[in-house]
Amino acid sequence: MKKCSVLVWNEFIHEKSDPRVSAIYPDGIHQTLKEGLSVDPHLDVETATLAQPEHGLTGEKLNSTDVLLWWGHCAHEEVKDEVVDRVQKRVLEGMGLIALHSAHYSKIFRRLMGTSCSLTWREAGERERVWVCNPGHPIAQGLDRYFELENTEMYGEPFGIPTPDEQVFLSWFEGGEVFRSGNCWKRGNGKIFYFRPGHETYPIYKNPTVIQIIRNAVHWACSEGRWIDSCPNVPKEEAPEFKESASKNSETNPSE
Amino acid sequence: MKKCSVLVWNEFIHEKSDPRVSAIYPDGIHQTLKEGLSVDPHLDVETATLAQPEHGLTGEKLNSTDVLLWWGHCAHEEVKDEVVDRVQKRVLEGMGLIALHSAHYSKIFRRLMGTSCSLTWREAGERERVWVCNPGHPIAQGLDRYFELENTEMYGEPFGIPTPDEQVFLSWFEGGEVFRSGNCWKRGNGKIFYFRPGHETYPIYKNPTVIQIIRNAVHWACSEGRWIDSCPNVPKEEAPEFKESASKNSETNPSE
Amino acid sequence: MKKCSVLVWNEFIHEKSDPRVSAIYPDGIHQTLKEGLSVDPHLDVETATLAQPEHGLTGEKLNSTDVLLWWGHCAHEEVKDEVVDRVQKRVLEGMGLIALHSAHYSKIFRRLMGTSCSLTWREAGERERVWVCNPGHPIAQGLDRYFELENTEMYGEPFGIPTPDEQVFLSWFEGGEVFRSGNCWKRGNGKIFYFRPGHETYPIYKNPTVIQIIRNAVHWACSEGRWIDSCPNVPKEEAPEFKESASKNSETNPSE
Amino acid sequence: MKKCSVLVWNEFIHEKSDPRVSAIYPDGIHQTLKEGLSVDPHLDVETATLAQPEHGLTGEKLNSTDVLLWWGHCAHEEVKDEVVDRVQKRVLEGMGLIALHSAHYSKIFRRLMGTSCSLTWREAGERERVWVCNPGHPIAQGLDRYFELENTEMYGEPFGIPTPDEQVFLSWFEGGEVFRSGNCWKRGNGKIFYFRPGHETYPIYKNPTVIQIIRNAVHWACSEGRWIDSCPNVPKEEAPEFKESASKNSETNPSE
Repeated sequence: MKKCSVLVWNEFIHEKSDPRVSAIYPDGIHQTLKEGLSVDPHLDVETATLAQPEHGLTGEKLNSTDVLLWWGHCAHEEVKDEVVDRVQKRVLEGMGLIALHSAHYSKIFRRLMGTSCSLTWREAGERERVWVCNPGHPIAQGLDRYFELENTEMYGEPFGIPTPDEQVFLSWFEGGEVFRSGNCWKRGNGKIFYFRPGHETYPIYKNPTVIQIIRNAVHWACSEGRWIDSCPNVPKEEAPEFKESASKNSETNPSE
Repeated sequence: MKKCSVLVWNEFIHEKSDPRVSAIYPDGIHQTLKEGLSVDPHLDVETATLAQPEHGLTGEKLNSTDVLLWWGHCAHEEVKDEVVDRVQKRVLEGMGLIALHSAHYSKIFRRLMGTSCSLTWREAGERERVWVCNPGHPIAQGLDRYFELENTEMYGEPFGIPTPDEQVFLSWFEGGEVFRSGNCWKRGNGKIFYFRPGHETYPIYKNPTVIQIIRNAVHWACSEGRWIDSCPNVPKEEAPEFKESASKNSETNPSE
Repeated sequence: MKKCSVLVWNEFIHEKSDPRVSAIYPDGIHQTLKEGLSVDPHLDVETATLAQPEHGLTGEKLNSTDVLLWWGHCAHEEVKDEVVDRVQKRVLEGMGLIALHSAHYSKIFRRLMGTSCSLTWREAGERERVWVCNPGHPIAQGLDRYFELENTEMYGEPFGIPTPDEQVFLSWFEGGEVFRSGNCWKRGNGKIFYFRPGHETYPIYKNPTVIQIIRNAVHWACSEGRWIDSCPNVPKEEAPEFKESASKNSETNPSE
Repeated sequence: MKKCSVLVWNEFIHEKSDPRVSAIYPDGIHQTLKEGLSVDPHLDVETATLAQPEHGLTGEKLNSTDVLLWWGHCAHEEVKDEVVDRVQKRVLEGMGLIALHSAHYSKIFRRLMGTSCSLTWREAGERERVWVCNPGHPIAQGLDRYFELENTEMYGEPFGIPTPDEQVFLSWFEGGEVFRSGNCWKRGNGKIFYFRPGHETYPIYKNPTVIQIIRNAVHWACSEGRWIDSCPNVPKEEAPEFKESASKNSETNPSE
């Protein structure tokens, strides 16, 4: 079984500036995610961050990546447009993308959705209960009917997204809201999964169920086919029917 | 503006057998719905019930109906298959269908969805909060961000439906569940709306917001086009290209 | 019946630089489209072009527009990003958008789709036959099973779009290709229709069937609801459940 | 890598009654398909036919099947409803279904779609060109931009199906029609692929490209998760929130 190449991208800012965050994620959210994913021997996991040249997302790097995880929160606007172009192109070719929590407002997620990606929100450390909408879905394997996160930031509807191709999770919040928390889309040949849970000051990515879901999502999003985009002109002499007519016309004794 | 012809169908059994139900809906749920819809001068509203000949759903009646509302609960299996065939055919032609609450398990809704339409449920008179997922949607016009029903039966995920074309409402339940409560699909040329709120022993259909939503849904589902199904053979001499070849061959002086 | 405000946008370049185009559309494609739409008394039709200040697409103008038609071909890149932002925002609020022919590569269409929007193409003046996939669809009203365009530019698959919500037309080309020619999507509260036929050197927009379809599409895309986007914080004291708890706690004799 | 269990179902009537068919498929279409699939060492392929007890589709057999192929043409009505119920249930649980050619009118396909599944058709031995709409799709792996079948029955639009989740193939016909020839849906946890090519008197299933596509589709449709449907009541004491309240109320020193 071919290994799936995973790249965990993190803006990696909060962890260096906010002691509450560095207490939870001393090496950055990306390292915690990498550790969580690396227990799976079928995954090859690397990381990249905003501060690296080209944000660590060179053409070569992306070309060898099967699934990209994206975590950003306070620096969406610092991601360069040409890098976003490049990531979008790779997703359309077939690279999977997993957008985590506040990545709903990242340039790449908004670019792929074409919508506002807005939502309502509240930080009150309330309880979230994430329900499974399709117990047989690859991303929900190994889960019970629901799981709970004791302290989370609330995200509520309306969530400004195109209708998901599949609804895998819906969240219930202690404060009274609901949210589409696990949503699948396909764009070009790339599979996209938005997963709501996650936060910089709650240790969500140390929760084994959350990590299991992200692992499941990586496998779901990993694909082998590629759709290399172009917008080719097809000259008349190469048109299937005109080509055949030409060839038929030149035959001396057409059988039909 | 052409009036929209609405037919409210009710199995009309609980209201005659259960005093708790008849106390709320003495003339039947269908009469309460008819009253709620009839305040709109653009709607012509009639009713039909299970006990009528052909369940009140003759070909002629359906042919003149633009939108059908369906309420059934304990007698789904008593609806004759040939009537379900007829209703399905009209939906595919273009008649709107609004399936209310326990109609998730009606023959006609399951037939159109192709799935189990199962869910989880509980009768504990708990509070439901219905959230708007698309504040601009025709079915959500005039609503606030959410509305509440003080005492309802709970319906929870997983709800065994095809992914809705549009998600209009999601519900939050006091007991901790969530549910896709307002879902749109199109099948053939017919628009279908499933709307969760409603119950026989809670006076849900006397709630002005609920009635407003059903009215909105009727207008949304009302269409003028028809797709009369057939599976026609197209003989070779009527094939667009073969016909033209034939006609070209027979012309003495083809201009091309 | 409230009139629908339609704005026909044209980059208006070919018509001034290419005599073959000005011979067909002496006042510009936008004027021909405006004339074709204006026979419908329910439509108020205006025009805007690239050379106008803000491309004729001010916030005020867009705010009063119900449906925008877009024709661009050789100057997609000259459309300013802030104008595209503004148009996108209005579509998400509820303005309809009809993207015509080469507008598949316009900034606004690609922005809303999130995909490459690429296709294959050929200019050989070949015949196109456009088939109706849903004879009951509002956009197909008044049409026969298909219509033909004697001389068209070919557009072929693969077309780099998200799966349409509804497939209204598919095209057959004399040269042997096929194409998804009439595609519906909804993004936010806005309805989007991509319609393939159209070209600057073939008089496609003088074809009565083509104009009828565009008129149908305008009515289909015209909506009254609005979804004004924001991403509001909901403070804890305004959370539905916490608010109620607070209010319950302050009651002297809470019943529960 | 776990093997995928494939079951090829055939009504197996034409092959015994029509010498033109038995000349091409002497052992039945199912045997030809089985041979074509069996070259893949990851597939375990078996067959079943209408004449067998329970049409060869016992609960036990279906329970161990990962992907079911369906070929029927003249005897759709002879398939027992209880067997269709059983197959539908397994698809919703997660068994893949590949409906071939005239299976568009099979009970199981119509049941899962909920629509008419009608189309137009013609038997004139004309040429079909099948175009790839998503070159990166798993089902299109190994294909060129299109492939051709020299003599086929024509199927044309409108095709009475719900909008496919993904459009993989579109067909062009010599006689002038077009058709949605390769369509994906998901129902419950089951993946469904409709594939148009195939006929009893043209040797379509001996075409290596056709067989390659069916093999690709089998791998695409093969899934490991299961969604065992039920419609469970959740008693009040097991509601997530009520349960917690109860448990909190009974604790003497609740920590939160």
